[in-house]
Amino acid sequence: MAVYTEVSDEALRAFLADYPLGELLAFRGIAEGVENSNYALKTAAGDFILTLYEKRVDPAELPYFLGLMEHLAAHGLACPTPVHGRDGAALRSLAGRPAAIVTFLPGVWPRRVRPEHCAPLGRALATMHRAGEGFSIERPNALGPAGWAPLLDGCRARGDEVQAGLVAELDAALEGILAAWPAPGALPRGQIHADLFPDNVFFLPDAAGKPGVSGLIDFYFACTDLYAYDVAVCLNAWCFEPDYAFNVTKARALLNAYEQVRPMTAAERAALPVLCRGAALRFLLTRLYDWTHTPDGALVTRKDPLEYLRKLRFFSQGEGFAL
Amino acid sequence: MAVYTEVSDEALRAFLADYPLGELLAFRGIAEGVENSNYALKTAAGDFILTLYEKRVDPAELPYFLGLMEHLAAHGLACPTPVHGRDGAALRSLAGRPAAIVTFLPGVWPRRVRPEHCAPLGRALATMHRAGEGFSIERPNALGPAGWAPLLDGCRARGDEVQAGLVAELDAALEGILAAWPAPGALPRGQIHADLFPDNVFFLPDAAGKPGVSGLIDFYFACTDLYAYDVAVCLNAWCFEPDYAFNVTKARALLNAYEQVRPMTAAERAALPVLCRGAALRFLLTRLYDWTHTPDGALVTRKDPLEYLRKLRFFSQGEGFAL
Repeated sequence: MAVYTEVSDEALRAFLADYPLGELLAFRGIAEGVENSNYALKTAAGDFILTLYEKRVDPAELPYFLGLMEHLAAHGLACPTPVHGRDGAALRSLAGRPAAIVTFLPGVWPRRVRPEHCAPLGRALATMHRAGEGFSIERPNALGPAGWAPLLDGCRARGDEVQAGLVAELDAALEGILAAWPAPGALPRGQIHADLFPDNVFFLPDAAGKPGVSGLIDFYFACTDLYAYDVAVCLNAWCFEPDYAFNVTKARALLNAYEQVRPMTAAERAALPVLCRGAALRFLLTRLYDWTHTPDGALVTRKDPLEYLRKLRFFSQGEGFAL
Repeated sequence: MAVYTEVSDEALRAFLADYPLGELLAFRGIAEGVENSNYALKTAAGDFILTLYEKRVDPAELPYFLGLMEHLAAHGLACPTPVHGRDGAALRSLAGRPAAIVTFLPGVWPRRVRPEHCAPLGRALATMHRAGEGFSIERPNALGPAGWAPLLDGCRARGDEVQAGLVAELDAALEGILAAWPAPGALPRGQIHADLFPDNVFFLPDAAGKPGVSGLIDFYFACTDLYAYDVAVCLNAWCFEPDYAFNVTKARALLNAYEQVRPMTAAERAALPVLCRGAALRFLLTRLYDWTHTPDGALVTRKDPLEYLRKLRFFSQGEGFAL
């Protein structure tokens, strides 16, 4: 969970003095997010989130992430917006870490995904893609296809401890995915979220009492890559049931709603199966890497890599994926 | 950290429908507290804390804890107050766990204790003791003197793995403490907090900009025991520097301010050294028990038992403790 850096109250007050937010009223660690330290901050000006960026985040990339959030919010996406200090800077320093305050986003993430979450999700994802047009900084996807072979190499020594034959299966899967991957320029690209799991999507009931997206959070894997790959990540993360059955109703709701806001090209639709295999492999590999490199006793929740092996196998069969 | 039970949004909304708190606006896990699952809850009526009581808490004791908070708040202590459901009940059920909503308390706990925190702490502790007069439910202190021998027995097999000779040293310390412990009836007793560490005391600046206590939280170790033992817990938890030096300035500030609200008897003052040894042993033993019984890889922060061995040895020397 997510408080790695403790902040003394003197340091916090000195930090806040550089913002026009009024007096400090409360400051509590949040048990969500895995990469950074997150605090719920209440001041006379309202509720905010304070993030201290831990060592897995490259400080040189923070201007991209903060700039993207600001651009997206200014172009119609509900998402946290960086708060600027009195000198105009949003990226500052606290307790020896890069730090930023962003606005508080109301809403609740769905602990159990229901079909009626998927259409609002699809609309929000497409809204993000359209809102990101015009944001001109490029950030390569470090966890995209070019990163998968090195990740798999890092798992080679101990990967089969998780399941016998796993490394050989992933070698074959990777080869097949890379061979079928869309050629550069074949599909539209732009700013993508790249990690839009349920805990990064907040919902509130709309006027009719149905789930509506109140906003997206956690842009720290965002990058410049294929829009349809972002859709594939969501198909992996939102459309499987707890027993690993693929729920076509959820998938169709997601895709149809996405296309109401941003229609996909025929090439994008055709590429979805391989993009889904790639997205499954990406989460499988990072989970497998963490699983085989986390010391016993470390205070980190290790997510099950085999969940994504089931998903990879599903998308590799090709059956049942007529959307 | 502290989210053990996930709550589906349907279950949460059904639960909230039994309260007069208006619509749900936000719900986030809090990374503080070790025993229970705590969530920051925002509704149309304001900010609240939702607690799900996990297996270390005996449901039969919850009416004592909730009743005590309500009594203390009604008698002048700033602390969370249980929110009653529409049917009048404050203790309810959610996700298969006993659950309660309490009011949100503003303030920030001190990550680094300064001398100027200690007088407000002493006044708040004495205010709690006086506010608890008239609360007639008795809860024995399960982690009081009668509980220490069984705890130490539970550490016997592996205690010396933490430090050679540790079990023998604790056997001797326990014998000495029990021999010198105040006889029943010798000291005033009542409702005590019994776990008033810095993360359970919130501060906000007063009108002069100095630290003032905005409230006390986490009454789930509260019990009916010696008032002066509560003072001894605070001397252990607040008055040592990071290098284990005992800061007499902090201790005097704490005691003097305590006595401005509730003067101690001569017998209480005289008993403080043995009460401090007992309090040090109590935290040493529960930490040692957790240390020797937590499986490697468990997602729990194990606190260092040896910190309290240093404190126990300090209070056992007798020197430097002329307050």
